[in-house]
Order: sequence, then C-alpha cells, then structure tokens
Amino acid sequence: MPQQSASRATDLVVFGGTGDLSMRKLLPSLYLLDRDGHLDGGTRVVAVSRDGLTDADLRDKAASAVRGHHAVQVAEPDVLHRFLERLSHVTVDVGGDPSGWDDLTAALAPGRDRVFYLAVPPMISGAICRGLDDAGLVTPDSRVVMEKPLGRDLASSRAVNDAVGAVFDESRIYRIDHYLGKETVQNLLVLRFANVFLEPLWNSRWIDHVQITAAETVGVGGRRGYYDTSGAMRDMVQNHLLQLLCLTAMEPPASYDRDSVRDEKLKVLQSLRPLTGDRVAEDTVRGQYGRGSVHGSEVLGYLDEPGGPALSDTETFVALRAEVANWRWAGVPFYLRTGKRMSHARSEIVIRFREVPHTIFPGTNLPGAGSLVIRLQPDEGIHLTMLAKTPGAGALRLRPAPLELSFADTFATRSPEAYERLLTDVLAGDSTLFMRRDEVEAAWRWVDPVIEAWNGLSTTPETYPAGSAGPAGAHRLIGRTGRTWYEEERPR
Amino acid sequence: MPQQSASRATDLVVFGGTGDLSMRKLLPSLYLLDRDGHLDGGTRVVAVSRDGLTDADLRDKAASAVRGHHAVQVAEPDVLHRFLERLSHVTVDVGGDPSGWDDLTAALAPGRDRVFYLAVPPMISGAICRGLDDAGLVTPDSRVVMEKPLGRDLASSRAVNDAVGAVFDESRIYRIDHYLGKETVQNLLVLRFANVFLEPLWNSRWIDHVQITAAETVGVGGRRGYYDTSGAMRDMVQNHLLQLLCLTAMEPPASYDRDSVRDEKLKVLQSLRPLTGDRVAEDTVRGQYGRGSVHGSEVLGYLDEPGGPALSDTETFVALRAEVANWRWAGVPFYLRTGKRMSHARSEIVIRFREVPHTIFPGTNLPGAGSLVIRLQPDEGIHLTMLAKTPGAGALRLRPAPLELSFADTFATRSPEAYERLLTDVLAGDSTLFMRRDEVEAAWRWVDPVIEAWNGLSTTPETYPAGSAGPAGAHRLIGRTGRTWYEEERPR
Repeated sequence: MPQQSASRATDLVVFGGTGDLSMRKLLPSLYLLDRDGHLDGGTRVVAVSRDGLTDADLRDKAASAVRGHHAVQVAEPDVLHRFLERLSHVTVDVGGDPSGWDDLTAALAPGRDRVFYLAVPPMISGAICRGLDDAGLVTPDSRVVMEKPLGRDLASSRAVNDAVGAVFDESRIYRIDHYLGKETVQNLLVLRFANVFLEPLWNSRWIDHVQITAAETVGVGGRRGYYDTSGAMRDMVQNHLLQLLCLTAMEPPASYDRDSVRDEKLKVLQSLRPLTGDRVAEDTVRGQYGRGSVHGSEVLGYLDEPGGPALSDTETFVALRAEVANWRWAGVPFYLRTGKRMSHARSEIVIRFREVPHTIFPGTNLPGAGSLVIRLQPDEGIHLTMLAKTPGAGALRLRPAPLELSFADTFATRSPEAYERLLTDVLAGDSTLFMRRDEVEAAWRWVDPVIEAWNGLSTTPETYPAGSAGPAGAHRLIGRTGRTWYEEERPR
Repeated sequence: MPQQSASRATDLVVFGGTGDLSMRKLLPSLYLLDRDGHLDGGTRVVAVSRDGLTDADLRDKAASAVRGHHAVQVAEPDVLHRFLERLSHVTVDVGGDPSGWDDLTAALAPGRDRVFYLAVPPMISGAICRGLDDAGLVTPDSRVVMEKPLGRDLASSRAVNDAVGAVFDESRIYRIDHYLGKETVQNLLVLRFANVFLEPLWNSRWIDHVQITAAETVGVGGRRGYYDTSGAMRDMVQNHLLQLLCLTAMEPPASYDRDSVRDEKLKVLQSLRPLTGDRVAEDTVRGQYGRGSVHGSEVLGYLDEPGGPALSDTETFVALRAEVANWRWAGVPFYLRTGKRMSHARSEIVIRFREVPHTIFPGTNLPGAGSLVIRLQPDEGIHLTMLAKTPGAGALRLRPAPLELSFADTFATRSPEAYERLLTDVLAGDSTLFMRRDEVEAAWRWVDPVIEAWNGLSTTPETYPAGSAGPAGAHRLIGRTGRTWYEEERPR
C-alpha cells in the first residue's frame, strides 16, 4: 500500500508503553493510522516500561490489543504484521537503575524526529524528562506528549509544567484532552466559522442558555483509589467540560492555527466569572452515586467500590452554573454537568435559543424555543429543533420538528478515533488541538476555589441512585430559573 | 363519527360545479374534510351548471371523482354516502333563461351561511354576481370565492374586481391562490416567526440571493387555446411566484391575521423595483418548449399542441431577476423561474446564504455557502445545507452536509390538500390565506410592463427541449453574477 503521510519518519517513544492507555488507545489508533496510510513507512514505536518484556512479548500483547479494539473490526494480517514490525520494547526504571537509558539511546536513531509520549502518572513526568535530558536524548525538534491528570490543582499543575518545561520548550509540549480529538468537537469550529448562519445568532441576544453534559454509565471500576484523590470536578470539569465551553463560547480566531485558537480559548477561561463564597453553594451541586441499576444490571454504590475508604466526600457528579463575563455572553448561563453511573452515556452541547421577542400567533400553543444540539456521543451528529406547523386543515398548532445530521449516516467515511486525530497531529507537529500551559492553569485557577469552598462546607455530596439522571439538586439548580435539562429521546 | 367543525352549517354553491376544478379538487377535498370531521353536519353543496344534471347524475360523477383522487385512497362507504347526500345540482344558464335563479333560490335555505364559489372563467364572474344579487340571494354574510385567472392584466383584473365588488364587500371576497394552501407555504411563516433563529439572518447582510422555482413536467395539454392568451408570466409568476416572494420577503406582521399579513405582503409588492425598459431584456428570459422527452416519453412541442395557431410567442417558461427595494433586501436578487415540460416537477424556495466574511481555514477547500431550501413539492420539507468537516485524521476538508426535515417522515398526520385548507378557511370566514384586491392589482402593476416590453421586442421566446432544465438564457441570467440555479439531487 502506498504511504501517504503528513509526518516524517519518527521514533515515537511511549513511557508507560505496556499500560492501559497504550494498549486500549494508542497502539490500536496507531494501527488504524498505519492501515489507512497515515503513518510514515519509517516510523517506529518504542514502548518503554519497567516490565522487562521482549519485543516479541510486546508484539503479542499489541496484536491482542489491536484485534480487540472496537474500531478495528477485523485486523488485516499484512497490515498487522507491518505494524508490529515497527514495535520494540525497552526497559527503563525511571529513578532507578540508569542502564535503561543507554538501552533507550541505542534504540533511537540519530537524525529522526522524536516524540516522547508520557502515558504515566504526572508525578513521574518530571523525572522522565530529566532522564531524557541527562541521557542527551532531547533533540531541538523533540516533542513531548502529556496526558491528564495535569496536576490536581493549580500548584501541582505548575510543578509538573515547570518540571517538563525545564527540558522542553512550551511549543514542544502537547497536552492531550482527548475530547478535542473527537470529530464533532472539531466540527463545532467548522460549523461556527465556515458557515455564515450560526455566528449572527451566537450571543446573548438570541441564545437563552447553554448546556454541556458528559454523562457516563460506568462507575470508577478498579480506579477507586485514584479517583478518591480526584473526583468529577478535577477529572472531567477542569479539562473536558471547560474545553467544550471554550470552543462554544470563543470569539472567532483570526485563523485556525494553534496560537490563534488557543488565545481565544484562554480569553474565555479568563472571562469566567469566579465561583467563590456563597455562590459555590448556590451555583454548584455535588453528587455521589449509590447502589442502583444500570442498563438492567445491579451495581455497587461508590462507597462500596473496592480500593477506597468506607466514607468519602469524593464527588462522582457535578452540575454547575458558569457565566462568561464578556459582551457576547453577559447574562447567558452555561450549565455544566458530568457524572458517572448515569442512566445513559451521552456527551452533548445544547444551545437553547430564546423565545421569539413577540408572537404573531396569539392563542396558539408555544412548545418552547428551538435548540441546536451538538452530540459528541453516542451518535455524533447535529440536531436542530425548530417549531413547525402541525399538518392539518384545522386551527394552527405548533410542534417541535427536528432537522437531523448524523455523521455516520451522512459520511461514508469512518469517523476516526480521537487518538488517531491527536497522534496524527503530534506526528505532524500541529498543536492546535492540544492545551497550552496557560489554558490549563487558567482552568485550575477557576476550579480550585470551588473545590476549596466545598471542603469548607458542612454538606456532603448528594447521593443519587446509580442509573439515574443524577441528584435532585441538579434539577433544582437549573429549575430555579424555570429551565430544564435537555433530555433528548435517543435517536430512532 | 362526531362532527368537529370551526364552521357553521353552510350552503356552498359552486358555479362551474360539474367542471374540471370542481371534480378534480373541490369535491374530493370536501369529502376529505367530511371524513376527518371538519365539515358541519348541516353543510350542503349545491353544484350549479348549464348541464341539466339530476342530483343522482351529479352524485355518480362526484363519487367517481372522490374515488379517483390520490389523497382519498379508499373511500369509506359510510362517509361517501353521507357526503353524497349533501350534494345537489341546480341548472342555471347565466345570462340566459332566468328560471334557473328561481331553482337556485328554492335550493337555498334562509338563515344559513352562504358561500358562492366561482369556478368559472373570470368574464362570467360579474354576470353571476349580478344574477345572485337580482335574485336576492346575497345575504350580508355571504362570501364569494374567486379562482385564477383574476384577469389578464391590471385593467381586466380591475374590471372583474369592480363587477364582483359591486355585489360583495371586499371583506367577503376570497381570491384563491392554491399555493397559499400548501402546508409548506404556511409553514414558511411559522418557521420565520415562531422561531428566533431565522429572522436575524433574514436580510441582505447574511443572504446572498433567493431562488423561487415552480417547475412542471406537464405541458399545456388540452388548454393550448386558453394558454395562448395567457403564458407563464400571467399563469404562474403574477400569482404563485409573487405570492411566494411576498411570504419570503415580508416584514414580521404584528399578528397572524388577514389584514396584518396582507398589508405586509402588499408592501413587498409595492417595493418591487419596476422591470421596465432595457432592464426587461436584461433581467428576464422567456422560453417555449419544443419537442422532447419527459420521463422517457416523447412529447410534442408547444407549437404542435392542438388548439392553437402554428406560430405563437406565448412563453411556457419565464426566468427573471427581481429586486425588493427596501432596507432589508437592498442588493439581494430574487430569481424567479417557472416552466412547463421541465425535467422534474418541483416547487421550492432556496435561500442562499452569503459566504463567511473571513475564512479562518486558509488553504482549505470552500465548497460554497450554505442554503436553506423550503420544498413545496414533491416532498414537502425543509433542507438546511451547512459546511461540515469531512471525517478523517488528515488535513481539514470541508463538505456540505444536509440537515433534513421531511414533513411526511416527521409528522404521522397526513398533510391536507391545499384546497382542504382553503375551503376550511372559507367556511370559517378566515381570509388570511387569500389575496386581497390591492395585492392582485399591485402584482399586475409590476407584471404588465414586462409583458408590454416583451411585445415590443423583436425577439421571441427561446426554445428549450421538453424535459430539459429550460432555455440556456436562464442559466446566463443567473450566471452573469457567478451564481447558479440550485439543482438539488432528488431526496434519497
């Protein structure tokens, strides 16, 4: 198969290369890129771990991971063979026996692009970067990729950023928020800025409020120990939900390039009205799932999940009301909501339009204003609800009518996995869809006071049954102003 | 079946009651209204003609007409029986033997609502109204319904309006444009004014141009004799197309009632920039179909159709560029187009948006701006084309993506026939969807100079092959400014 690639031959070094993220996401995505001709023929993948695997061990593991991935369906033997040939394993004990660094040095060819992918907990990131630097492996063109969590507050985030920044220039650091790799999220910018008809509506004059929801049906699973140190605010709101808010609320950038886009996102984060003091109790709701039933199966409550203490204030659900204090959005609430063990897995941005300023149809029912829904999952697409006339020769009746665009139905092309997109961009050296340091820190600056205020409150998260729509408080939060969460019927 | 009706028991007197319109449209629509419970139990239909039919003859004829109508599918015997019982026939020779008027008087009950439906050529309308008046049949609440053609120019239109107006007050005159009875046309007002998100875009800042197309596959058939005195400009543009233009371009009325809506439509007609002098040759195109093939069948050219002279300048196709000279629409061309013997039967309004004022995606393909298509037939619905990202991990590529709303798919309810809607409104005394005298005359005032200018030109209509997209001149007309006619692929 001819190779078509925007990237050059690269050594992609994955620290944590035998771990969960690598096996579940990175290697299957790299296989798909290889299959579809997006990987340079000379690109190699070096998995680094402390596991002492042989190359053959790694390739066996990788082959299973690729075959088991939902987007791969049936692995093509020739492609899989070619792909596995790219893989090798190097054992490095970061902070321990330094001989591993020599092995890594030997595994890398001079003069090739280098990408170091840190699929490891953030506290190790600094040590890895120092190790790379000490071993002389960091060339001027080397890039480094970081995964969430990027700290657990502003201070720890700064510490990690400082440690990595001591070795890599900011322009060489790629911080992943995999939500930004989703097709629909990128499409949000295309929809807004390649079409003329959304931008005139995209402000407080025509938009009543915005809802951003990321609901999962899964619980914390085996990650209870880690999750108890994090919670939904750090795990989801600080990164994914605020990134979606930024893309929704940002001003048009002058150009779709890394600094123009990230400058505009940063401005949104800087415009977020601080949630502090009494407003935290008023404008945020914490929840924690109890025992319940998801898709017909009985599941444990959070406190019963193994690996953590019997009592915990960790929130598995957050709903909050944010405000973007600028000319475009003054007075338009942004309702953010995320939770584990919800009834349906769903990520979506809902733009709720205002009512018409004056109705010319007096005496006619008015079934609420229209909405634009940008659906990230399960079925990526766009959904515009408008009021139309109910057919019939009798009195005029209005009802909501959906205009639907399903990406799967519309485009014969498969939508790539988020990691395919992001790995492509890393290999091509395009950081537009990655988070800049100032963005991450601005997000922490807004999130930290909320968590601090929670810690000072006498209340605890409100329990909600697993498999439900979240705690009642979330409905009260939005209901206070007569609004409701958009709970769309699943598409037919 | 219980009767639910907004109207009261009415005597509906149809002049021309055994004719084509009555059999093809009026009686089947009345049957459907009866079936669906929209006809008062006491309402009766009196068909008037010179034919000397008995009631039984008429009912046989009506039963066939109902059974043969596409929207009826299977006539329900009980309903059909009940419906036929409402029918009677009276022979009146307008301008001849006056005894018919006595028979009609005998057929009508005092104290009931009266609707006189003039399904006759316009030159007889005045005589019928005088006959009704002389016979003392016109009560203060009587209404009269007029059908197109409402004259063949301003002068003849005025003459008919004067003759009918001498007997009936303007508020009692219902001038039918059956396009206004179509669901999608009424929906246009609902879409524009019950939703907040079209109106901000609905002006020259965001709309590049508007296209209004009414294409038929039929030829003139047996109507060549009549058609030679009319042509597409009088038969389609003066009424249907200008009405669609009015509904598209009008300002928001204060209320959806007859005078508010018709005042706004009138203002649009009055704002049409006159097409006179050199601009006629520049901004209009006439066509006449020649021999050709429609849906695989060979068909005659216009000049070969029986019933008319071997040479004729009558246009069977018109395309023109209109301008609405007001603040909202200055500089936005409205391209109107209608023709017989076109390749596809299609009526639609296309709103073509402007390009974005600035592209943030340099180097990316720009496949043209989005459109909003309001489709009147064959498949009533709305279609919004926006630019979206083509899925894929490679370079950004844009492509048009459709958001679709098909009324048939969305609403389980059947869309009523245009005549069902209009007859319901006549019976209920609601004239919002009917044309007021000043509208009709304003339309003629704009159309007359075009026809006069054509008559003064040395050129003749451009021949186009039957079954084609019309004459090349129509493509040059719109192509002059780099635009093209919107030729949508037929829906899947």
